[in-house]
Amino acid sequence: MKAADPIIAFGSSPHARVRPLPLSAVRLGDGFWSARQRAIHENGLWHGLEQLRKTGSVEAFDIAAGLSSAEARGLVYRDSDLYKWLEAASYALGSRACEELRPDVDSIIEKIEGTQDSDGYLNTWFVGERKKDRFTNLESDHEIYCAGHLIQAAIAHHRATGQRRLLIVAERLASHLYEQFGPDGRFATGGHPCAEMALAELYRETGNRRWLTLSQRFLDARGQDPPVLGGKEYLLDHLPVREQRAAAGHAVRALYLYAGAADIYLETGEDTLLDSLTTLWEDVQTGKTYITGGVGARHEGEAFGERYELPNARAYAETCAATASVMWNWRMFAITADAKYIDVIENALYNSFLSGVSLDGTRYFYVNPLECDASHERRPWFDCACCPPNIYRTICSVHGLFFATDDDGVFVNLYDNVQLRHSEFALRMTTRYPWDGDVSLEVQSEGEFELRLRIPRWCGAAVVETPEGRREAQPGAFHRVRRAWRNGDRVLLRMQMPALRVAANPRIRENRNAAAFIRGPIVYCFESAGNPGVPVRDACVNAGAHVAHDWRPDLLSGVEALTTEGRVPRSCFSAQSAYFGPEQAVESDRAVRLTAVPYFARANREPGEMIVWMPIAEK
Amino acid sequence: MKAADPIIAFGSSPHARVRPLPLSAVRLGDGFWSARQRAIHENGLWHGLEQLRKTGSVEAFDIAAGLSSAEARGLVYRDSDLYKWLEAASYALGSRACEELRPDVDSIIEKIEGTQDSDGYLNTWFVGERKKDRFTNLESDHEIYCAGHLIQAAIAHHRATGQRRLLIVAERLASHLYEQFGPDGRFATGGHPCAEMALAELYRETGNRRWLTLSQRFLDARGQDPPVLGGKEYLLDHLPVREQRAAAGHAVRALYLYAGAADIYLETGEDTLLDSLTTLWEDVQTGKTYITGGVGARHEGEAFGERYELPNARAYAETCAATASVMWNWRMFAITADAKYIDVIENALYNSFLSGVSLDGTRYFYVNPLECDASHERRPWFDCACCPPNIYRTICSVHGLFFATDDDGVFVNLYDNVQLRHSEFALRMTTRYPWDGDVSLEVQSEGEFELRLRIPRWCGAAVVETPEGRREAQPGAFHRVRRAWRNGDRVLLRMQMPALRVAANPRIRENRNAAAFIRGPIVYCFESAGNPGVPVRDACVNAGAHVAHDWRPDLLSGVEALTTEGRVPRSCFSAQSAYFGPEQAVESDRAVRLTAVPYFARANREPGEMIVWMPIAEK
Repeated sequence: MKAADPIIAFGSSPHARVRPLPLSAVRLGDGFWSARQRAIHENGLWHGLEQLRKTGSVEAFDIAAGLSSAEARGLVYRDSDLYKWLEAASYALGSRACEELRPDVDSIIEKIEGTQDSDGYLNTWFVGERKKDRFTNLESDHEIYCAGHLIQAAIAHHRATGQRRLLIVAERLASHLYEQFGPDGRFATGGHPCAEMALAELYRETGNRRWLTLSQRFLDARGQDPPVLGGKEYLLDHLPVREQRAAAGHAVRALYLYAGAADIYLETGEDTLLDSLTTLWEDVQTGKTYITGGVGARHEGEAFGERYELPNARAYAETCAATASVMWNWRMFAITADAKYIDVIENALYNSFLSGVSLDGTRYFYVNPLECDASHERRPWFDCACCPPNIYRTICSVHGLFFATDDDGVFVNLYDNVQLRHSEFALRMTTRYPWDGDVSLEVQSEGEFELRLRIPRWCGAAVVETPEGRREAQPGAFHRVRRAWRNGDRVLLRMQMPALRVAANPRIRENRNAAAFIRGPIVYCFESAGNPGVPVRDACVNAGAHVAHDWRPDLLSGVEALTTEGRVPRSCFSAQSAYFGPEQAVESDRAVRLTAVPYFARANREPGEMIVWMPIAEK
Repeated sequence: MKAADPIIAFGSSPHARVRPLPLSAVRLGDGFWSARQRAIHENGLWHGLEQLRKTGSVEAFDIAAGLSSAEARGLVYRDSDLYKWLEAASYALGSRACEELRPDVDSIIEKIEGTQDSDGYLNTWFVGERKKDRFTNLESDHEIYCAGHLIQAAIAHHRATGQRRLLIVAERLASHLYEQFGPDGRFATGGHPCAEMALAELYRETGNRRWLTLSQRFLDARGQDPPVLGGKEYLLDHLPVREQRAAAGHAVRALYLYAGAADIYLETGEDTLLDSLTTLWEDVQTGKTYITGGVGARHEGEAFGERYELPNARAYAETCAATASVMWNWRMFAITADAKYIDVIENALYNSFLSGVSLDGTRYFYVNPLECDASHERRPWFDCACCPPNIYRTICSVHGLFFATDDDGVFVNLYDNVQLRHSEFALRMTTRYPWDGDVSLEVQSEGEFELRLRIPRWCGAAVVETPEGRREAQPGAFHRVRRAWRNGDRVLLRMQMPALRVAANPRIRENRNAAAFIRGPIVYCFESAGNPGVPVRDACVNAGAHVAHDWRPDLLSGVEALTTEGRVPRSCFSAQSAYFGPEQAVESDRAVRLTAVPYFARANREPGEMIVWMPIAEK
């Protein structure tokens, strides 16, 4: 076991209120997330490598190193896709899950080593004739972004394997960036944030403060006058980060930037930065987040919309944006120890993020609408292939989000069948979560500390049973149990988990007089599959109808399904016209029984329509 | 009086079922449209010329002709803005309205003449160093599009003034295009349609069939394999026009293309083309048109959305698209004599189109959403200045749409105070339309013919009183009255015009359980101005509330305003959260009286919120 391999090593950051646990301290037992990891370990990573090979991302390194004379293929940021795959594969190796991948990992690292220039520069796009274009188009050339992803992969690889070889490459590249953009270089930054996070983490990994300085310079270079990125909102260059108050621009870029700013705060404690981050976070939560945790409503510019601009069928809600939301909120939790950030992580993970990947791990969604027709199908890969490897690295490291500690105790953030062993401390969690709200925790070590159980905001009521007795727990916060624990002590958390109908703020126009269905952290949707003969996008749910749930072991690898009563109104089919005359009634036609399945599990059966927010039938 | 100066001269087209009347045959009396024309004649055209001068569109011709050594400004399609202004100014000259503009018109024509190359080529962008780039980038360089607009301006100028000088320039340019792209040239076309319409009309104006041939070639070149415009849907190159069945791509380009195809049909009678146009028209009407007549829902690509994808706040509904809809539907009417096309024209004219210009004619909207906050304000001009001159040319020629004829009689399409005199035929129309549904027609000549009165589709019931008596008239069709008319005979059309609440097809998600308000052809909206203290975007209208209307002579230059009862619910203000828990009621707070004004007249008072589709309060 490595001494420390957390996802993000803020354990010694002066402005962190919590410490992360090493990935290797947490072992997922058979349960919800182990099934997701298995799909990625056994299928996704292999499928991804095949696609990266097929589309030229691997070959690009051979070409750049002069080992192949083929024509390079792919887009300007293709290197980053391979780096993210490498990061995910490193987590898998660290989990002792994919030992068979090691030769591929080693071979790819060798290719990367062979591609690096003597001055440290590394990017397969800017070789040969394009060498003269290095760092000439910072708005769109993604060189600094790709460097960021290499650094993240190198850190993950080092932590997982103990090997320094990729980290050496990363530090050489970071040195080159420092020469170009450090205190004695240009005051500029790249169009797509990422290096801010990566360099802050490289500082944590190596102790070399130059990397933190460079991270800060990249952050500070945005929003200057004159601007270095054309002042474009799309590139988050419309205002200095410290003056940004409303989430705007390209959602993934924005969230990567906020995550980088949070990393810098963790090291510097600069209040202005935290003020901005807190305000931006409130803004994202207030009418810029789908009920699925999806963010970035607009196709145009892949951007945040205005407040309450959350169209369902035209939702963008890129899988990468949900990933980025997890990254940012994990850092905000590190800063504050506030359960609300884990609420956002849980919401994104189980819904908008996880919807990005099929149950078997090999088919993906780039955008995650909340309503669609049969043409919206998963695909094996994308020309712009950012999402699949982001899925891999997030799922392969998800167990790193389950716990955190401080001097007084341990935070239990997420629930699943998990065994935690760290130094002298051990804890075993047993649950059917997210399908059931009962969680049993067994302390397997001795000592006085505080156990903090996150009571999710979706939870109406919860009780905690400890050796001292039974207490009610407040949703939206950590429930704290302090005692001198003895080996074998048990705590039982019982969260009520009824199937619920949810209403939206009326400013979200499309959802007016419509209901969404949730149970626990899971958002549900209605698909054509499982509702034979029902045109689900035309159906309504009855106003007062009961919502039942039942476990279906054979459905979609095992899910709780919801059922309720609804109707299919007649007029949807008789009228092609867009507008009806005055006071024209919509007559009820036939009653239907409606079945909903978890949103993340959609599009794993035959193609069809899907809808999350279903209209409520007039009485 | 000129022999014939219609907007589009399909009077001799073999496949036209109606003939247009000359613009000079129709004189608007004091009324709704004369006020709009006056605003353009007295303010708009002058303001536009000043802006075209200020932004370099006029100067570009001096620079291209070598008369100025300034640095050229503006965008690649800047010439077209000036041409559209020239077309509008020509209509104004034809109306004897803006004699003071004549020197400017002449001077601009002189500049255009001076800019044309000896080979006929004419475009201020592709001069000097850029000469080598002529016709090298048909996707985006707009050369053929600009040529189309020059031809349209030249025809209008010729018809209005009898002068041939700009027409000579246009024919020389057309000849150059014919050499490049005619039967002996490249089989290709430009990214932005326009020349298809213009060349068909140049054929009608000159009798030279080469122009029709070239128009057809430009039409046919789209959607080929291999594609000439990259096969892009945005450029309408995804399918051959004859195989296009769903309106898609950039809305203005699409509608210009369909209009050009209709022009070609008028001359060729090719059934396949008409089949496509009819199918496309149905598609545009079925869930791709706002209640305002606005089209092109998406900001992304300024494109048509899917069916029923009609977001209100994020509507694109470009002013130019409403203009283009009028152009296309006018041609479809020419082909069919069907009143439904005039219904679409009326809907667009009074609402989505007219909302593009302030009451005084000098401030504009490019996009026309159906809901907005206070930041959406009119602007004096745009970098991409296509909309204002499209407004000018449409309003300055609007009287050309009022009537049409065939061998048996006259079609009365639109209603206003109008005097028609054509050959031996004269007719006088008196009405307060669109504020009142009574229209009085006095025949001022003798002879047997059929008078066809369009009964609009918005009209619930109408009666027509003739010397023979009183008859009910069917909405959505022409009501026909045939008799041997005597000078002084009167016909009275009485259209019921109550204020109506309208419901939308439930597939238009945002409008579910919301109402829009119309009266006659006018769509209404609620603005902060006129509703003091009411947050109109949070208000609801009461389910059964009466809608009153009253004439307000001092409001917005005189409009009928609507008033009704509603509420402002409390929860909009107490909760910042986007999603409410289960079964959480929205409590009614305070009752409010709501005032609505015509959508076209919005944003002529202090900035504020605006909404067309208002939610219906729960009982």
